Amino acid sequence: MSRLPFPFPVVAWDAGRVVVLDQTRLPDRIVFLTCADVPALCDAIVRLAVRGAPAIGVAAAYGLALAAHRAATAGLTADATLAAVGAARRLLASTRPTAVNLFWALRRVAARADTMVAAGVGPTDLAAGLLAEARGIHEEDIDMCRRLGAAGAALLPDCATVLTHCNAGGLATGGYGTALGVLYAAQQTGKTLRVFADETRPLLQGARLTAWELAERGLEVTVLCEGAAGSLLQSGAIDMVITGADRIAANGDTANKVGTYPLAVLADRHGVPFYVAAPASTFDLATPDGGGIAIELRDAEEVLGFGGVHTAPAGVGAWNPAFDVTPAELVTAFITERGVLRPPFSASLATFGPG
Amino acid sequence: MSRLPFPFPVVAWDAGRVVVLDQTRLPDRIVFLTCADVPALCDAIVRLAVRGAPAIGVAAAYGLALAAHRAATAGLTADATLAAVGAARRLLASTRPTAVNLFWALRRVAARADTMVAAGVGPTDLAAGLLAEARGIHEEDIDMCRRLGAAGAALLPDCATVLTHCNAGGLATGGYGTALGVLYAAQQTGKTLRVFADETRPLLQGARLTAWELAERGLEVTVLCEGAAGSLLQSGAIDMVITGADRIAANGDTANKVGTYPLAVLADRHGVPFYVAAPASTFDLATPDGGGIAIELRDAEEVLGFGGVHTAPAGVGAWNPAFDVTPAELVTAFITERGVLRPPFSASLATFGPG
Repeated sequence: MSRLPFPFPVVAWDAGRVVVLDQTRLPDRIVFLTCADVPALCDAIVRLAVRGAPAIGVAAAYGLALAAHRAATAGLTADATLAAVGAARRLLASTRPTAVNLFWALRRVAARADTMVAAGVGPTDLAAGLLAEARGIHEEDIDMCRRLGAAGAALLPDCATVLTHCNAGGLATGGYGTALGVLYAAQQTGKTLRVFADETRPLLQGARLTAWELAERGLEVTVLCEGAAGSLLQSGAIDMVITGADRIAANGDTANKVGTYPLAVLADRHGVPFYVAAPASTFDLATPDGGGIAIELRDAEEVLGFGGVHTAPAGVGAWNPAFDVTPAELVTAFITERGVLRPPFSASLATFGPG
Repeated sequence: MSRLPFPFPVVAWDAGRVVVLDQTRLPDRIVFLTCADVPALCDAIVRLAVRGAPAIGVAAAYGLALAAHRAATAGLTADATLAAVGAARRLLASTRPTAVNLFWALRRVAARADTMVAAGVGPTDLAAGLLAEARGIHEEDIDMCRRLGAAGAALLPDCATVLTHCNAGGLATGGYGTALGVLYAAQQTGKTLRVFADETRPLLQGARLTAWELAERGLEVTVLCEGAAGSLLQSGAIDMVITGADRIAANGDTANKVGTYPLAVLADRHGVPFYVAAPASTFDLATPDGGGIAIELRDAEEVLGFGGVHTAPAGVGAWNPAFDVTPAELVTAFITERGVLRPPFSASLATFGPG
């Protein structure tokens, strides 16, 4: 069944190049893009060949290592290599505006570069140091997801049937996944799971990516349209809903892919636990509640067409928010790498924030 | 701006042929299919060129008139014409298994044929009689929708913003519509409306058909994915939700296009009225509650692909129920051609049933 190693090789360093699994080609084809320079990597990020906030952060970190490697190999001085890293940082920072992990990873690797050059390190060692920093970010992400997964796995009974939304999986992270990482961790303890995946219009990350990676890991997965989740929960077939999160306010209000809030409301009505799996870095304690979370409105064309074919009548518009906000009262618990947080969240979250 | 007459020419008789508006070509093109014989009309029904239970019933009625017309024109006897009508009835009855109106319309026209032949009517008069019967069914449907619309229009304030699901419009009926008929009736009284239309996966009847006919009637319409309906209702922008119904049990439990139940739950949470517009013939008093309504499971391919392109991974299945059941407690009122029914429904519905 599995054709790829796990954690998935979402991003990797290979002999002076950054190699990314092209998610725009999934699930039809497993294609790796070899990025020999930073503009090629930027293009892969812009085209969503690599997507998901943690995965973008890891890719960007390797991007700065790539810039240093090329400069050092070309015989530039340490200062000129540092300048090349700075130029690469500006280029990578311009790819996606909202992914917090992108800026965090760039800042971390650039700070390492500054420190090394200030300490008189030469260009070759600088390049090696930045690669080590990028690998560290990547390994920490996988380790964090493993711990998050282990914390969540205990919540799943054997033979559980789980409903998820969008893709909070290995493909969105360094390779292991948050919401789907919980399922992989439970699977590793020998539990049998059945998963229902919302197709997740308009971009179908559920049908394309979540279904692909769950099948790849040998988990039974069934796709459904968002509209069918109501009768699925009504039928009593679902033991728990588990999703990722893009940003969690200090009171526990949770922004995630649009369509998450209706699932939470339906789960509440049918007494089904609704879990949010997210690392500590997702908690934004500076934002008191969901009212302070800005929601990105995306291009209407994503809704009005499909695969390049316009389906709605010409001249008709669409409303296309990328995220919605689920009020904290509908969240049964947050699954994090530091353990499972239960209400009252404002108390348990007071100790949280970026690690 | 309207390019077509209203009520929409969904089905029409034109000099010995049945002409249907090809809904598979909407919204891109306005194409009429001319059906010169019953097999051609059956093909149009099977291919969903004409769809929606009331519209199928009207088309089938014209189909029997077409069979009689062809037989009479070919010089057949009254008995042979009656036999041709019987053959056409069997063919038309085999097109779609669940649409109740189809069988009702075929039964009514066939009964008229039996009565006329028994009374000694000749083939030409028989054909004319069946055409009159088909026209009667068509006109009654439009008249019923007009009365339903007028009953519902009073519920809409001026400048109302309305959310609807799937297509319960002119295209699904003899040309006027049920849920959308309420909007057209309100528009005729001078009210300004803004409509949000769920795209309605998997077949996109909202994005393709509802958006088309509302725009055609000059109503402002915005399409959204089902997943975004939660935040739309959360935002307070919606004054009421209005949908059609496929079957309503004696206690008011309502089967309609999958995705209706989540809307009803969300409307309830946000204190937004949830109206169901349906003619008396939709009420099935022999079924005590929603538990007795069989839900059609449709082909997984409708979910797994789009426009002939498979989007989900090979080997992954989909769960594709065509309808869901909204419990009566979530329905604010039923809008019918006999007036607006409010709870308790079991009392008000006792007088209901096919007219």
